[in-house]
Amino acid sequence: MSDEFDVIVIGGGPAGENVAGRAVRGGLTAAVVEERLAGGECSYWACVPSKALLRPVELAAEASRVPGLTVGPIDAGKVLGRRDEAVSFYDDAGQVGWVDGLPATFVRGSGRLDGPRRVRVGTPDGGERVLIARHAVVVATGTSAAVPPVPGLREASPWTSHEVTAATAVPERLVVIGGGVVACEMAQAMHGLGARRTTLLVRGGGLLARMEPFAGELVAESFADSGIDVRLRTGPGRVERPAPGGPVTVHVPDGPPIEADELLVATGRRPATTAIGLDTVGLRPGESIEVDDSMRATGVEDGWLYAVGDANGRALLTHMGKYQARICGDVIVARAKGEPDDLPALRDLADGYGAPQVVFTDPQVCSVGRTEAAARAAGFTVRAVEYDLASVTGAYLLGDGYRGRAKAVVDEERRVLLGVTFVGPGVGELLHAATVAVTAEVPLERLWHAVPSFPTVSEVWLRLLETYGL
Amino acid sequence: MSDEFDVIVIGGGPAGENVAGRAVRGGLTAAVVEERLAGGECSYWACVPSKALLRPVELAAEASRVPGLTVGPIDAGKVLGRRDEAVSFYDDAGQVGWVDGLPATFVRGSGRLDGPRRVRVGTPDGGERVLIARHAVVVATGTSAAVPPVPGLREASPWTSHEVTAATAVPERLVVIGGGVVACEMAQAMHGLGARRTTLLVRGGGLLARMEPFAGELVAESFADSGIDVRLRTGPGRVERPAPGGPVTVHVPDGPPIEADELLVATGRRPATTAIGLDTVGLRPGESIEVDDSMRATGVEDGWLYAVGDANGRALLTHMGKYQARICGDVIVARAKGEPDDLPALRDLADGYGAPQVVFTDPQVCSVGRTEAAARAAGFTVRAVEYDLASVTGAYLLGDGYRGRAKAVVDEERRVLLGVTFVGPGVGELLHAATVAVTAEVPLERLWHAVPSFPTVSEVWLRLLETYGL
Repeated sequence: MSDEFDVIVIGGGPAGENVAGRAVRGGLTAAVVEERLAGGECSYWACVPSKALLRPVELAAEASRVPGLTVGPIDAGKVLGRRDEAVSFYDDAGQVGWVDGLPATFVRGSGRLDGPRRVRVGTPDGGERVLIARHAVVVATGTSAAVPPVPGLREASPWTSHEVTAATAVPERLVVIGGGVVACEMAQAMHGLGARRTTLLVRGGGLLARMEPFAGELVAESFADSGIDVRLRTGPGRVERPAPGGPVTVHVPDGPPIEADELLVATGRRPATTAIGLDTVGLRPGESIEVDDSMRATGVEDGWLYAVGDANGRALLTHMGKYQARICGDVIVARAKGEPDDLPALRDLADGYGAPQVVFTDPQVCSVGRTEAAARAAGFTVRAVEYDLASVTGAYLLGDGYRGRAKAVVDEERRVLLGVTFVGPGVGELLHAATVAVTAEVPLERLWHAVPSFPTVSEVWLRLLETYGL
Repeated sequence: MSDEFDVIVIGGGPAGENVAGRAVRGGLTAAVVEERLAGGECSYWACVPSKALLRPVELAAEASRVPGLTVGPIDAGKVLGRRDEAVSFYDDAGQVGWVDGLPATFVRGSGRLDGPRRVRVGTPDGGERVLIARHAVVVATGTSAAVPPVPGLREASPWTSHEVTAATAVPERLVVIGGGVVACEMAQAMHGLGARRTTLLVRGGGLLARMEPFAGELVAESFADSGIDVRLRTGPGRVERPAPGGPVTVHVPDGPPIEADELLVATGRRPATTAIGLDTVGLRPGESIEVDDSMRATGVEDGWLYAVGDANGRALLTHMGKYQARICGDVIVARAKGEPDDLPALRDLADGYGAPQVVFTDPQVCSVGRTEAAARAAGFTVRAVEYDLASVTGAYLLGDGYRGRAKAVVDEERRVLLGVTFVGPGVGELLHAATVAVTAEVPLERLWHAVPSFPTVSEVWLRLLETYGL
């Protein structure tokens, strides 16, 4: 059996779904192939459940800083229950319905390339189906958690982002390996929900190493205050778990072994491109698929292959995957119709500026564009200004002991912002103003007339510009 | 005794202080004359204390929507205590110290004009001091609450914004006259802190009448749900308060009299320009002082008089007063030095776009620029798009039953935003992105590349643009 579609998307996460959505909107037919759940990691095992777990922890922390408010212990069972609701009880009927309604064809099964424009799908009943793409095949298979080669680690069946976000109970003793976004978010969520002894083993010298240094420092301070044990410049030497699901022992080079009830590995991601037939089209399995700014794979002839989201390695963020997907779907439509394919809307500009990102810890961390170090390394003439968020009236009014910091990185030649970072309780929604300013290259002299409202935390914008000298 | 200064500022609120700050930064000398507390209404009897009172109420409401969290009753005494701290216990030593440190001269007393460039100050000891301005006098006296001519109302000594924000106890029964920002914010604060029977009497057909209609509707829904009695198209016919500080009876045309323990009048503001000698320079006492975009009074010869903040009637908002003050201080410096006085930084652009404002109710309401109705009335070719915030994943993750709405008003000819409104719990910090977009006139096609982070509430930006058709 063979089916033809204008566009075949391998991977039905947010990025894949959005490619199909835009392609169909443009008059093309599309199929979405997904082995697991339509909606992908983000909807079931990443962004959505992690935030459902973090929200009560964050809010309890905020409330604890407001005199006159008292918050009882968090009921972890109810939080896990709302998490279940947030992930639709791991049922993708709603998402499949969304694809159907585009209308597009949802194909359940494992998709892999079989030469140009041809996709073989292994279906759940053990059968196989061959799909032919008239215009484009789009890889949107994402990434999966990398597990480092530590003796005994893989055998211990550690949690990854997948398992921790789907936890049905909270371990009392948790060891987290890693210091990035997933490690920080999940350490805090589990600790707040009852993992009294939570230990982070971080290979590098700080948390959130890709952000401005003060971001990781402020998060580490908060973790220390709340009793999370953060250990820097260390890692597991060996792991033992004698009984599956039983206690685990993590040996570290610089101290006694750590006994825990669960172990979370959050040391990065690898492209989920090993088993999708990349070799049949001349690409290397297991690597990111390099694309141009229209999301077209650069290593394949005739321009029929595209990759969006984590699979192209540009930015491992749902919103950037979706953004790339909109561009990709639109550009495929333009090319299929023989229309101009080089309009500004058909190019990925945002990844070039530096993708926006929010870390939902307490304090929250968010940034867009380049860090000061990255901007200097890229050759810009840079001046950076910082401001203590605790000195902003709007932050003081949120509670006692507010701690936070803001930083703006300015391109001195063009007087536009290259990057902005905010750290502080609840600052996540401040980011989009920075994203607009960076992406639209709004001159500082114009930002001066964008008056932040008093008394919001956003007044830090005024303080940054004043500090700069305006 | 006579003193000369380059700039004399009458009124030491945030606007007045900022004029002095910018003037001194530019090398001029300045005096700030203030009869009451340096820091003004905002710091002691408006923005700051009102937000200190609202924060626990807002946060308790947010927590009540998060399964797994339990919040105890609010301890009003502790909240009033933190309010006292937020207003520095009504001691302005810190603010006076700020003026001294500029350095500028703080003069305690009532300032009034006595002809061109001359200010007479009635000092607290009953004496008088005459100040002479070499370059400019700036009026920054703000506004005071208007009390409508209702029989018995003034005699009942009702609360205004001044008294309610400084309350030392929470009345059990409160009647609020008005439906604007102060009325809504303070009704909610008092109700949340213990005013079990809170009644709003609103003359018009809805709350927050200057905003998009759905803003007032969503706030009214929330008030109804929480048990605040909102009565539209009505008002007090007569007020009786037999004993000072005792129970008050408010007679209404359409129902039985309302018995209450306190009465708050929040029906607008009038310029605090009655007793500042405007008649000595040819202006009408009690009116707003009309100014040009450099904040210079248009009705006075030789251009030595300026007015900033509420007193000029442009926007009754602290942040706009401070913005005008920065322009005013800088332009006075430029003119004193004979430098160009028409640079973009020396003109008030922001008020022309429509001032940003946040209402700190639950749900919060914020807007910038023009409403759809105002944009149409101004002759723009308008298209407006709306989006239900409850459909944004980031909002769903904040709690159960999230209700909110967003609206963008687009100038179809230039494809830029003329106005944006958000309503929903905690949306206040979303506003600045809109303020940047409106003020910088960022084309929609460029906003399309400003990717909101998932899963923030800011993702509504994507939804609005998609709804528009991008």
